[in-house]
Amino acid sequence: MPPISVRPAFASSVRALTQNATPRVSQLTPRVSQPITRRFKSGPYGYTQAKALVYSQNGEPCDVLFLHTHSISPSLPSNALLLRSLAAPINPADINQIQGVYPSRPPFTALLGTAVPSAIAGNEACFEVMRVGSAVKEFAPGDWAIARAPCLGTWVTHVEAQEDALLRVEKEGLTPVQVGTVGVNPTTAYRMLKDFENVGEGEWFIQNGANSGVGRAAIQLGRLWGMKSINIIRERGTEEETEAMRNELRGLGATHVVTEGELMARGFSEQVKEWTVGGRQKVKLGLNCVGGKPTSAMVKCLSDGGHLVTYGGMAKAPLQVPTAALIFKDVKFSGFWVSRWSEKNLDEKRRTVGEILELTRAGMFADVPVQKVQWDWDTKEKTLKEAVTGTLQGFRKGKGVFVFGDT
Amino acid sequence: MPPISVRPAFASSVRALTQNATPRVSQLTPRVSQPITRRFKSGPYGYTQAKALVYSQNGEPCDVLFLHTHSISPSLPSNALLLRSLAAPINPADINQIQGVYPSRPPFTALLGTAVPSAIAGNEACFEVMRVGSAVKEFAPGDWAIARAPCLGTWVTHVEAQEDALLRVEKEGLTPVQVGTVGVNPTTAYRMLKDFENVGEGEWFIQNGANSGVGRAAIQLGRLWGMKSINIIRERGTEEETEAMRNELRGLGATHVVTEGELMARGFSEQVKEWTVGGRQKVKLGLNCVGGKPTSAMVKCLSDGGHLVTYGGMAKAPLQVPTAALIFKDVKFSGFWVSRWSEKNLDEKRRTVGEILELTRAGMFADVPVQKVQWDWDTKEKTLKEAVTGTLQGFRKGKGVFVFGDT
Repeated sequence: MPPISVRPAFASSVRALTQNATPRVSQLTPRVSQPITRRFKSGPYGYTQAKALVYSQNGEPCDVLFLHTHSISPSLPSNALLLRSLAAPINPADINQIQGVYPSRPPFTALLGTAVPSAIAGNEACFEVMRVGSAVKEFAPGDWAIARAPCLGTWVTHVEAQEDALLRVEKEGLTPVQVGTVGVNPTTAYRMLKDFENVGEGEWFIQNGANSGVGRAAIQLGRLWGMKSINIIRERGTEEETEAMRNELRGLGATHVVTEGELMARGFSEQVKEWTVGGRQKVKLGLNCVGGKPTSAMVKCLSDGGHLVTYGGMAKAPLQVPTAALIFKDVKFSGFWVSRWSEKNLDEKRRTVGEILELTRAGMFADVPVQKVQWDWDTKEKTLKEAVTGTLQGFRKGKGVFVFGDT
Repeated sequence: MPPISVRPAFASSVRALTQNATPRVSQLTPRVSQPITRRFKSGPYGYTQAKALVYSQNGEPCDVLFLHTHSISPSLPSNALLLRSLAAPINPADINQIQGVYPSRPPFTALLGTAVPSAIAGNEACFEVMRVGSAVKEFAPGDWAIARAPCLGTWVTHVEAQEDALLRVEKEGLTPVQVGTVGVNPTTAYRMLKDFENVGEGEWFIQNGANSGVGRAAIQLGRLWGMKSINIIRERGTEEETEAMRNELRGLGATHVVTEGELMARGFSEQVKEWTVGGRQKVKLGLNCVGGKPTSAMVKCLSDGGHLVTYGGMAKAPLQVPTAALIFKDVKFSGFWVSRWSEKNLDEKRRTVGEILELTRAGMFADVPVQKVQWDWDTKEKTLKEAVTGTLQGFRKGKGVFVFGDT
């Protein structure tokens, strides 16, 4: 399925920003501050102005992130592309990366022209291709792209990237937010449901964090594939809110939605047995982003030979694995890290993302609720940083996503 | 490789025990108590006397085990064999089974003629075939056999069993103890080294309980297959004893032997890094029969993508699994239960046992140290029960194995 190539009318929108050849990335102060608009504006041989949320040391985002303006040289290497961000989500992993507690980290570089070497934050985005180098094969200006792997730096208005760091996305019928959020959470849900156990039609999985991006994606994909699901959510502020959440997830296709309290209560495994026709329908898979005691309770609901896949640890408590579950119930424990998977499985990532976006286009895969944070040229650093720290404090109103200019 | 068939001279050793046809298994008191000898003694249509350690309820072996005499009818069903035990080990799982804390349990039966229904203890043995039913195909009198799966009841002098509950063993060049202890511990070690990760030549595994039956088997098989091993033992009573144990295991082929204290000390993972040439040689597999904190320390020594296989939980403490080990180090956690494996993989069990016994014959696989407990016809119940409770209290002098009559 070749992507539709939309070539913007470059000639009509060119305007000079600088006149001289200078280093490709510099601290050059732009002569004119201008809003980002849908079309790329630059002069012949002109520099592109970019703003980015960067950090020069690891720490809390509120302490270490700052908004930095830099320029990107017009002399594009042959295998590089100039990109403009359309939408870039704020994922928990992005924050852990800034804090320095995440194993994949971008190198701090002097190329951004910050006082001390720094890195651009963010790992996921929907980009629009502005210009391509002479040797670029798969992209044309106007195409949409996502990062192939983490550490590209996506909380940025414009960025230059190598072709092999990107995956082209068929943009027709999709929004930038849909494309900009497909590569991490829905991809994680897709692979966890497919790659660990062969959960057949009419068989079950159980998951916690069911209202998260991954959880919602798993509910929907699982239902499309004929799976049944037991979905665990944390209690909301009020019973009404909890009930509303249950209904929302049932609307997405959740078979059962239970609170953590209900999971931990005596007799829950009998309840599961009843749902699974006395255990004849297997609960083959558990998806865990919590950890600690509630996860041990979830493990008890797995059938013999079941598999618990961990992709997060929100409770910040290790998993307690009873010896008997391993030996006698033959329960297996694995982890899933979409970054590692993406680096090792490029073709499969392309296919996975393509399939999810096809479902999105067909109206069969609902968007995750997001809280859009508008990022214009004049948006204040404070606004952007608050969006990041707000993500730290909880996702109840939906995931934070930077949306750029007039996208 | 067809087993050698050695047919005992039946005609010359027959002697009547009973004269009348009675139910196949009864409480009949034998007219003459006689020692078990190598050759089966019975008259035409005569009953076989058997003694067994049985239990009618779960509990501590010292409380619930008793020595029971019963008779086995001469009218053998067509697909059954009459067996005599040559050697039967006392495994920790046998004791857990008596205690009622082991998931596979023999049913309590009235057929033994006990006051209340009971089961024969023990799960592993080397049997000699005494007589075969008319439809038995693979066995002839004099052949040796082991149990195909647990719950056969092996702490017994004679037993009747179905052909499909047994595996024939080529006895040439082997002792009853070697054959009677091959099906659980060496088989467990063999399958754990083979079935979870592809540990290549020059690659490593790490294991605790290294001086156990499984541990010693893993050391030897691993060395034969070109693997290197880090072996964890508990500190002995004195430094000399600890050093002697290190030397003993090194003699079997252990690359490194460390105490639990050394494992838990700071800097041990640096030591492992040095041994593995800066981590370039992978530690792909961990074998765990302990649990608790020392096992967490062992997990830290695994390479990225490593696999911890649990087959026991001597520390009676759950495994603590840090989320990061699962997600970022991609460490996998599984269990291995030789009983389940054996039931599902009969042909492979036959092949595995055959290969280990071939190595034993060739002098390439050393026997596990055992403490033989002689079981003659007149051996007192107290002596047999003390052997069982002694196994509960520790294995320092070697595994307890019942050896019967003049074997």
